[in-house]
Amino acid sequence: MEQVVVALDAMGGDYAPEETVKGAVEAVAEHPEIKVILVGKEESIRSCLAGYTYAEENIDVVNATEVIDMGEVPTKAIREKKDSSLVVAMKLVREGQADAVVSAGSTGAILVGGQMIVGRIKGIKRPALAPFLPSKQGFSLLIDCGANVDARPEHLLQFAQMGSVYFEHVMGKKNPTVGIVNIGTEEEKGNQLVKETYPLLRDCKALNFIGSVEAREIPKGGADILVCEAFVGNVILKFFEGVAKTFLGCIKEGLMANLRTKLGAAMVKPALKGLVNTFDVSSQGGAPLLGLNGLVVKAHGNSKSSEIKTAICQCITFKKNNINDRIRDMIQKG
Amino acid sequence: MEQVVVALDAMGGDYAPEETVKGAVEAVAEHPEIKVILVGKEESIRSCLAGYTYAEENIDVVNATEVIDMGEVPTKAIREKKDSSLVVAMKLVREGQADAVVSAGSTGAILVGGQMIVGRIKGIKRPALAPFLPSKQGFSLLIDCGANVDARPEHLLQFAQMGSVYFEHVMGKKNPTVGIVNIGTEEEKGNQLVKETYPLLRDCKALNFIGSVEAREIPKGGADILVCEAFVGNVILKFFEGVAKTFLGCIKEGLMANLRTKLGAAMVKPALKGLVNTFDVSSQGGAPLLGLNGLVVKAHGNSKSSEIKTAICQCITFKKNNINDRIRDMIQKG
Repeated sequence: MEQVVVALDAMGGDYAPEETVKGAVEAVAEHPEIKVILVGKEESIRSCLAGYTYAEENIDVVNATEVIDMGEVPTKAIREKKDSSLVVAMKLVREGQADAVVSAGSTGAILVGGQMIVGRIKGIKRPALAPFLPSKQGFSLLIDCGANVDARPEHLLQFAQMGSVYFEHVMGKKNPTVGIVNIGTEEEKGNQLVKETYPLLRDCKALNFIGSVEAREIPKGGADILVCEAFVGNVILKFFEGVAKTFLGCIKEGLMANLRTKLGAAMVKPALKGLVNTFDVSSQGGAPLLGLNGLVVKAHGNSKSSEIKTAICQCITFKKNNINDRIRDMIQKG
Repeated sequence: MEQVVVALDAMGGDYAPEETVKGAVEAVAEHPEIKVILVGKEESIRSCLAGYTYAEENIDVVNATEVIDMGEVPTKAIREKKDSSLVVAMKLVREGQADAVVSAGSTGAILVGGQMIVGRIKGIKRPALAPFLPSKQGFSLLIDCGANVDARPEHLLQFAQMGSVYFEHVMGKKNPTVGIVNIGTEEEKGNQLVKETYPLLRDCKALNFIGSVEAREIPKGGADILVCEAFVGNVILKFFEGVAKTFLGCIKEGLMANLRTKLGAAMVKPALKGLVNTFDVSSQGGAPLLGLNGLVVKAHGNSKSSEIKTAICQCITFKKNNINDRIRDMIQKG
């Protein structure tokens, strides 16, 4: 079994380093082919590690004295905090000492660091953040949800190409469908960006393009890959999180309203559990930043150990399937 | 009591004319100050009306021989189908024979017809479609959800101004909060449009601007008025519809899974009913197209009689509160 080395930004996220360290221990216990390099304040990390039993050859610690906070301006933080856990972890990927970086830290810093330190694949104009969005059918890949707003049509074409490669090899579905998020299904509908992107997607032979997907079709699983500009993607992703949370909160309140509903709740709970799991945004771990010379995975800021574990384990499939080589091929063929 | 005259596009919508006619009968029964002019194929309308008892002075029929279909190109349809129910209804408003038009027909045709036939208020650069979006707090006004994509900052400022006037007088809340839909809460976040609009909103003294609202805050009621460009607004609105429908569908399936869950369902039903009502997009009837010389209300394409009735009754508040005069004042003051 080939080893997969993951540099984990142990200081990134709301529950770091306790939950990041725990997630690393869980990941190597489940997948012995993984080696995690915990990057961050060594003393804190070691003291967290002390509580666990684990195969020592599977976990390394690399010291980094600084931490990039959520509120910092990304470009400034990446440039100035050379000894931050995120920058040091990314350098491990650049230098070939790790296959992937996982971080639950600042999205902006991860995007900037990914481009500045790990670097783009030759020919890729912009990397894209591509989370899986739960749907009734399974999952759709929403690309781009990053911070690179105001994209151009040729960027969206590359997002579709990278998304297709990723979806096919991670989900194991040949020829996945590609749709563009739009405000109508007719070809002449949309804003300038969508209208100019549409023919590029339609004419790209490597894509299984099915046309426009209206937002109301997304929860039903309108397409395997949903292409959109980052502002729109970000709104969809966060709105989904907000709606799911508010809905489930209201259901819970409703079920706990009185003795009668509490009794009823006990009877329907197993059935509703399925709903909660189906629409759990965090179940897929992290979102990859596609298009870089190495794998960069962004985990949710409020990740607990189980999400960190999932994000780490994702890296196996990515490496095993040579996603980056395939993206390189796809882009060169055009 | 002042009479409010509503021209109803009796042929617009998936269930026209049966449900539109029924909605009109229900509206005048509930609010005798309303007079509805049913516009469309007279024979069909009269045969629907024959099934009801109603105050005859409250319902008129105006014949129009053509119908604009959902798939038609809006500008072409409005120009060529001079005797369509929508065009004839809108002319009644332009000529002062009706205060408002209500239509569940093609959104595109309503937007184009509103501008070409009813006309814009002097000083308004673009009208905006402004539906209420349900939230845990009540409702937020999402402006713009129309088809005028690629808006400029000065358009968004006017959307905020019109939205404020409308919200204040329809919801009865003084000084409602205004937020701009964004992908972060810091002022430097966002795409070009949001960054350029932000200072305009911040510096407009007539607005209670609270800054950026992330999409995940929307279901919690992040701001009374949510300002955004039409593409984004349309995506939010339709995605909300889709998620709500899928969620409620999954709950229903879960509750009907077996005998045990069915028994439990009976006990929790009243509590969950609240959830369904809270997140019912159609409960607010139609969305006004703000900024026109008259009221144009777009009802959902799949409206049944109760939604049509609500959309008609909305027109009372709009007229009684002189919303359009107030919008005119607001825009002139700048």
